[in-house]
Amino acid sequence: MEPFLGDEPIGWPEIADAALIEDLGLGDVTRFAVPDDLKSDYYIEAQGEGVLCGLGFVQDLLAPPAGADEDEYAEHHMSDGDRVFPSDQVYVGRLNTRELLQRERTALNFLMHLSGIATLTAKFVDAVKGTNVRILDTRKTLPGLRYIEKYAVRCGGGHNHRFNLSDGILIKDNHIRAAGGIVEAVTRVRLQGPHSMKIEVECATVAQVDRALSCGADIIMLDNMTIGEVKDAVSIVQGRALLEVSGGVSLDNVKDYAATGVDFISVGMITHSAPALPFHLEFR
Amino acid sequence: MEPFLGDEPIGWPEIADAALIEDLGLGDVTRFAVPDDLKSDYYIEAQGEGVLCGLGFVQDLLAPPAGADEDEYAEHHMSDGDRVFPSDQVYVGRLNTRELLQRERTALNFLMHLSGIATLTAKFVDAVKGTNVRILDTRKTLPGLRYIEKYAVRCGGGHNHRFNLSDGILIKDNHIRAAGGIVEAVTRVRLQGPHSMKIEVECATVAQVDRALSCGADIIMLDNMTIGEVKDAVSIVQGRALLEVSGGVSLDNVKDYAATGVDFISVGMITHSAPALPFHLEFR
Amino acid sequence: MEPFLGDEPIGWPEIADAALIEDLGLGDVTRFAVPDDLKSDYYIEAQGEGVLCGLGFVQDLLAPPAGADEDEYAEHHMSDGDRVFPSDQVYVGRLNTRELLQRERTALNFLMHLSGIATLTAKFVDAVKGTNVRILDTRKTLPGLRYIEKYAVRCGGGHNHRFNLSDGILIKDNHIRAAGGIVEAVTRVRLQGPHSMKIEVECATVAQVDRALSCGADIIMLDNMTIGEVKDAVSIVQGRALLEVSGGVSLDNVKDYAATGVDFISVGMITHSAPALPFHLEFR
Amino acid sequence: MEPFLGDEPIGWPEIADAALIEDLGLGDVTRFAVPDDLKSDYYIEAQGEGVLCGLGFVQDLLAPPAGADEDEYAEHHMSDGDRVFPSDQVYVGRLNTRELLQRERTALNFLMHLSGIATLTAKFVDAVKGTNVRILDTRKTLPGLRYIEKYAVRCGGGHNHRFNLSDGILIKDNHIRAAGGIVEAVTRVRLQGPHSMKIEVECATVAQVDRALSCGADIIMLDNMTIGEVKDAVSIVQGRALLEVSGGVSLDNVKDYAATGVDFISVGMITHSAPALPFHLEFR
Amino acid sequence: MEPFLGDEPIGWPEIADAALIEDLGLGDVTRFAVPDDLKSDYYIEAQGEGVLCGLGFVQDLLAPPAGADEDEYAEHHMSDGDRVFPSDQVYVGRLNTRELLQRERTALNFLMHLSGIATLTAKFVDAVKGTNVRILDTRKTLPGLRYIEKYAVRCGGGHNHRFNLSDGILIKDNHIRAAGGIVEAVTRVRLQGPHSMKIEVECATVAQVDRALSCGADIIMLDNMTIGEVKDAVSIVQGRALLEVSGGVSLDNVKDYAATGVDFISVGMITHSAPALPFHLEFR
Amino acid sequence: MEPFLGDEPIGWPEIADAALIEDLGLGDVTRFAVPDDLKSDYYIEAQGEGVLCGLGFVQDLLAPPAGADEDEYAEHHMSDGDRVFPSDQVYVGRLNTRELLQRERTALNFLMHLSGIATLTAKFVDAVKGTNVRILDTRKTLPGLRYIEKYAVRCGGGHNHRFNLSDGILIKDNHIRAAGGIVEAVTRVRLQGPHSMKIEVECATVAQVDRALSCGADIIMLDNMTIGEVKDAVSIVQGRALLEVSGGVSLDNVKDYAATGVDFISVGMITHSAPALPFHLEFR
Repeated sequence: MEPFLGDEPIGWPEIADAALIEDLGLGDVTRFAVPDDLKSDYYIEAQGEGVLCGLGFVQDLLAPPAGADEDEYAEHHMSDGDRVFPSDQVYVGRLNTRELLQRERTALNFLMHLSGIATLTAKFVDAVKGTNVRILDTRKTLPGLRYIEKYAVRCGGGHNHRFNLSDGILIKDNHIRAAGGIVEAVTRVRLQGPHSMKIEVECATVAQVDRALSCGADIIMLDNMTIGEVKDAVSIVQGRALLEVSGGVSLDNVKDYAATGVDFISVGMITHSAPALPFHLEFR
Repeated sequence: MEPFLGDEPIGWPEIADAALIEDLGLGDVTRFAVPDDLKSDYYIEAQGEGVLCGLGFVQDLLAPPAGADEDEYAEHHMSDGDRVFPSDQVYVGRLNTRELLQRERTALNFLMHLSGIATLTAKFVDAVKGTNVRILDTRKTLPGLRYIEKYAVRCGGGHNHRFNLSDGILIKDNHIRAAGGIVEAVTRVRLQGPHSMKIEVECATVAQVDRALSCGADIIMLDNMTIGEVKDAVSIVQGRALLEVSGGVSLDNVKDYAATGVDFISVGMITHSAPALPFHLEFR
Repeated sequence: MEPFLGDEPIGWPEIADAALIEDLGLGDVTRFAVPDDLKSDYYIEAQGEGVLCGLGFVQDLLAPPAGADEDEYAEHHMSDGDRVFPSDQVYVGRLNTRELLQRERTALNFLMHLSGIATLTAKFVDAVKGTNVRILDTRKTLPGLRYIEKYAVRCGGGHNHRFNLSDGILIKDNHIRAAGGIVEAVTRVRLQGPHSMKIEVECATVAQVDRALSCGADIIMLDNMTIGEVKDAVSIVQGRALLEVSGGVSLDNVKDYAATGVDFISVGMITHSAPALPFHLEFR
Repeated sequence: MEPFLGDEPIGWPEIADAALIEDLGLGDVTRFAVPDDLKSDYYIEAQGEGVLCGLGFVQDLLAPPAGADEDEYAEHHMSDGDRVFPSDQVYVGRLNTRELLQRERTALNFLMHLSGIATLTAKFVDAVKGTNVRILDTRKTLPGLRYIEKYAVRCGGGHNHRFNLSDGILIKDNHIRAAGGIVEAVTRVRLQGPHSMKIEVECATVAQVDRALSCGADIIMLDNMTIGEVKDAVSIVQGRALLEVSGGVSLDNVKDYAATGVDFISVGMITHSAPALPFHLEFR
Repeated sequence: MEPFLGDEPIGWPEIADAALIEDLGLGDVTRFAVPDDLKSDYYIEAQGEGVLCGLGFVQDLLAPPAGADEDEYAEHHMSDGDRVFPSDQVYVGRLNTRELLQRERTALNFLMHLSGIATLTAKFVDAVKGTNVRILDTRKTLPGLRYIEKYAVRCGGGHNHRFNLSDGILIKDNHIRAAGGIVEAVTRVRLQGPHSMKIEVECATVAQVDRALSCGADIIMLDNMTIGEVKDAVSIVQGRALLEVSGGVSLDNVKDYAATGVDFISVGMITHSAPALPFHLEFR
Repeated sequence: MEPFLGDEPIGWPEIADAALIEDLGLGDVTRFAVPDDLKSDYYIEAQGEGVLCGLGFVQDLLAPPAGADEDEYAEHHMSDGDRVFPSDQVYVGRLNTRELLQRERTALNFLMHLSGIATLTAKFVDAVKGTNVRILDTRKTLPGLRYIEKYAVRCGGGHNHRFNLSDGILIKDNHIRAAGGIVEAVTRVRLQGPHSMKIEVECATVAQVDRALSCGADIIMLDNMTIGEVKDAVSIVQGRALLEVSGGVSLDNVKDYAATGVDFISVGMITHSAPALPFHLEFR
């Protein structure tokens, strides 16, 4: 599992801190219920089956700080990307009880959301096993969470499409319409855009595929095409461009799309509609 | 629809800007496909049925800036909280094409996520119609998005539980266990906590409800109880405390829980697992 | 002494750093007067009698950084909330002389201001000793310093009223006037406000107290009432609501107000007009 | 009245905003008491006699925003630095009632604190009227408020000493002790410090004054000296350096110090211990 | 002239503001020399020959703010990318004199630096006129100024190489050495890197060019090669990859390198060593 | 070598981090070329002759982080301000290879720019050796880099003029013109400006020098004067004010200007036009 963003993810502790502050407000008014010198042994337990993702955030939030007492600890024997089953203990530790109860919800929120994405991604990846197709994500992510959601996609075995508008060229239907045609759009981008990026063109018909190919598109996105149309596109292109299927893909049909011989299938729902994978934190 | 956070939500343009910057990176490299002085008429169309939420973000992102040409505009005849159906045009406008294509995805990401939450919330609210029960959200929200997700809950007809750990007292099972009992926990909080907040206690059994009541809890949360247990709790409490059902609630059983006579039902999935409501942006 | 904001105050080193930067500007131009490798033994001494508050800031500013030479140190045998007398040495240490002289003023500014507030608060608390009355602060604090000033109030033995407009409901005269009456205002808030907070109503007359009580106010603030009026209010309310005296309270009359049997007395001057308690830093 | 920091103070709206956010928290929960489309006419009234300061902050907070309805307004016929008396209306306007009630406290907190400083400063300035002495402030200001407190000093007729450690050279007793003497300290600073600043030296005895003069100090601070010692210093210096009295100055003795013929008298209490000047906001 | 970063550069007013604050410090102490209501007519004049760049920053800094008096203005009849000659007036206006004198230096600092880069770039571009070669910049830019320096390169007629490490793949000598060879490095990147970017490989010898070509490099950088070696590389590659010359290029030899038939020549000195183009601001 | 800003420069790690983030973008996409557990021994080598400056930034960027493996290290035997020659190894170390290749360019960019400034400054300083003249910098620095460029000037043996508009008074030609004369300008500043700063006046003619002297200027800047005019000014002033030459100074004539007996010569080109001193990083 190799994060795109660097060996050590940039800025993750900052994201964890911001989420904790969002949850703390001015401080936890219920904490007075618990003596301030008490400590608790706890574990985090999966309550569903899926793919684990987000341990780094749990670590940012629940690991004892530098200089903590020696009896405090936090450890995990599983890793992001591992498959989990109900009752699996994914994280265990000992911490000041007040501190723990103030940080629990934020840690679980990350774990449940990211594992939810990794789990749904893995279902798509499993469904196309045996082909060379890569499952890709999209830019349909939640505001402010794109980079960590794309990390969850990788944990689920998927690959990342472009991270944002500046690190990949993708000429879509509205661009083509505004430019006056595929050839016009591609020519304009080749002249003015960065020379180091490949040019991808979205095509809704096989005729458009032909045109994109003729003006040298490096990658062709087949938008909302039927299996039959995709097959036609594959046979026309004959390896002269990479092919990406996008739109109308579900767990029911993804295997059939994969069987057509395309290179990539991108799926918006793995980031915008993945249900949380449940976990809870219990005292030992 | 009354936002909790103020008449004009605090910081929303900042959230919209941050999301736009996340999506723009260094700038849109595909923009060269389109002449820079072109403008386009567009509309945003619902592709599913549900409750609309997020127009404020669309406005932040797509409204022409101060000093724009007079032919540029943006308008909408529906409001957050309205019910939408497939093909409803929820937003129409005219904008510089490059600008529009750079902002489209971010605007739709807000609209799809928040409408998804409002839609799922509304299903729970509809299911309990005819009772006095309020559907509440929880703190199981996505990191950094809590306040806007809680706004979406209100748009769907739900009410908000506490926003964070500092604006409501909720003594949970782990607090009770650490404190050594309900009485001990409540006493401690009453002595040290803020005098202006009510005290809520989570109870897993009817016996605990009795104890919470005896030490003057203002609100009692019935945690993962069966319908039968909830009925028992209601008959014991007899209006001396407010009652909240939490855990194990789904669209299938929420009506039955509501019929028991409790005051509130809180549902985590309306924020952590609501699927997006689809919308797209088309050129006229 | 229990801080409301958490076991370890949130963001205090950041506040100390910001104050230091305010005082440093581009750097200390007088530092050249002193050789850069010199160290000094110093102590901070009280120059008046009062209640100590602000050692955490002194610590943030004067404690040797990680990795400092072994002969550098900082220690204190008194705590926030302790009573101090002239010539008490509240903090001693050894530090690089340039570093020390650059940080001295900022550390003392915190110590003098916060101890000033704790000292004045303690005078009010002492004056009501023997009653059950809690001395409360108000929102009349200095911009940007509210949370630390409220901490100083606690160090002086006082309690905190709401921290800001979002963590407590207080219907004041202008609200009542704008709403058209107490009943209207309370009803509106009960319908739309958070269910987890008590409702407090400000009353200027005994007739208003009656009305507030009748519509179920949880707390009633008696605004600028004479001792006689307060007594009347107490006898009318008979424990059915908590009572807070506010306005016109001084060290001269606070004992009499306390004797009436109210629950809280709030005093603005403990934060907006407390004179500094003097301290200075000397070389040994 | 000429602000040191520029014709338009840098960053004041940011300070006002930060204070407002501190007071708002997540939003005003009492606002529901008032209909959201209501507007109110109001005025701010002085409740004590003194010197007005802080109208700019009131303006930042209460002026109707751009694009407000035409019936909303805010105006004032007095200026910072003007003398006010009880019942003077220093600011009048009309605003949305909810908005007004959310901003009132923050506006008053600035006005009361800054007018308090201006008022106490003016008392010292009045006391030395008829001499050429300038009343100066010190670095004994409240954390984060230094620049606005120094503005209040100017509004009260005082002058500013250095703003921070980088815009003025002041060799104090601890510097001299660490350097090994006045001559050593002055020589070191002249060699390494900025050539564009004057050199000020703190002296506790007349002998030290002599030494400071001999090594070319531009300004000499007479620290905690009696009137008699100050007179001796004046007669020794004979205009060859500027003289500043510091320490032990009160409203009772400032006139006598001024009569000695020194140039400046600096007073810490005008910033660290000025009581607030009371104001309140009333509906018309 | 088409900025890469968007039609309207992101964040430029923020950069201008930050530079102004850097120059203002706490405010301009010399401003008292000038009456505060004075206005001045001024112009900015070129003092050398070159290519203009940076008017946007001048505009950010010197344009009268919204709501300024009607007699204040700022205008320019030249554009970024235009050639200027000594005595050309590139910007004229009228502004409050104090305001103007506080902003002049910062505006000129941008103008002189960016025009310096555009001017040196243009010399390289002019030198290769008549060929199809593009002059490229590098990542050898000044800290914090990369995006605006790359804008200046475009104004001088150059093109931009990658903006940072995330928007282009470039396998350099140290990568190759660490990976154990060109083939190993390219294979690894193809497997794990983003599918939407071309792969560029730095080669120091013609043998390496051969190897890079064999494993499908899209772009080959010829590092510090002689004209002869470059010619060999061109004849081997025969259009199967794009070619970039880098290292050892000066105004003296760039024309010869361009004549070899390569696609790009990258030059570090246009950003790291361009002398400023002088401008000054005069009162009319 | 004594930094003006403090013993430990304020905010340098922050500047290094910001520059690294500018260069990293979302992360290094070429890093996959290198195994993630590989380490490399490296050195940084000078490729030209000059004065070294910027090691602190190299250290911020390349020193192994706390907790790194024991075989990782970074060391240097030279210091900022030392003279370097081609092939001098100024920095050596061992680091994770991916980490190293991601940080190399940013570290070198600081080193090359700052050493370039120190080197050019040293040429001016060397040229005036044997006189008492100090070489000063100006405010003609690159946006955002002023404080570190002024540090480089000190490393080259120069001295700093004012850091910004608030820490020194300098009345320039435009001020004089706007004020109506030198006397008017000086009088105004003396009345309203800070009493702790010297007053410097820019003079373009010997007649102006006379006038500046007559009204008590502490420092006189001789602007764009010939050697002859400067000599006249020196003989008129006779030590009653400090003298600074500015404008028209180059390495060819600086010695002659220095010989006139002035105190300071300020040179804009040492910051705005210093070419980079080349360095590269090689694997051992």
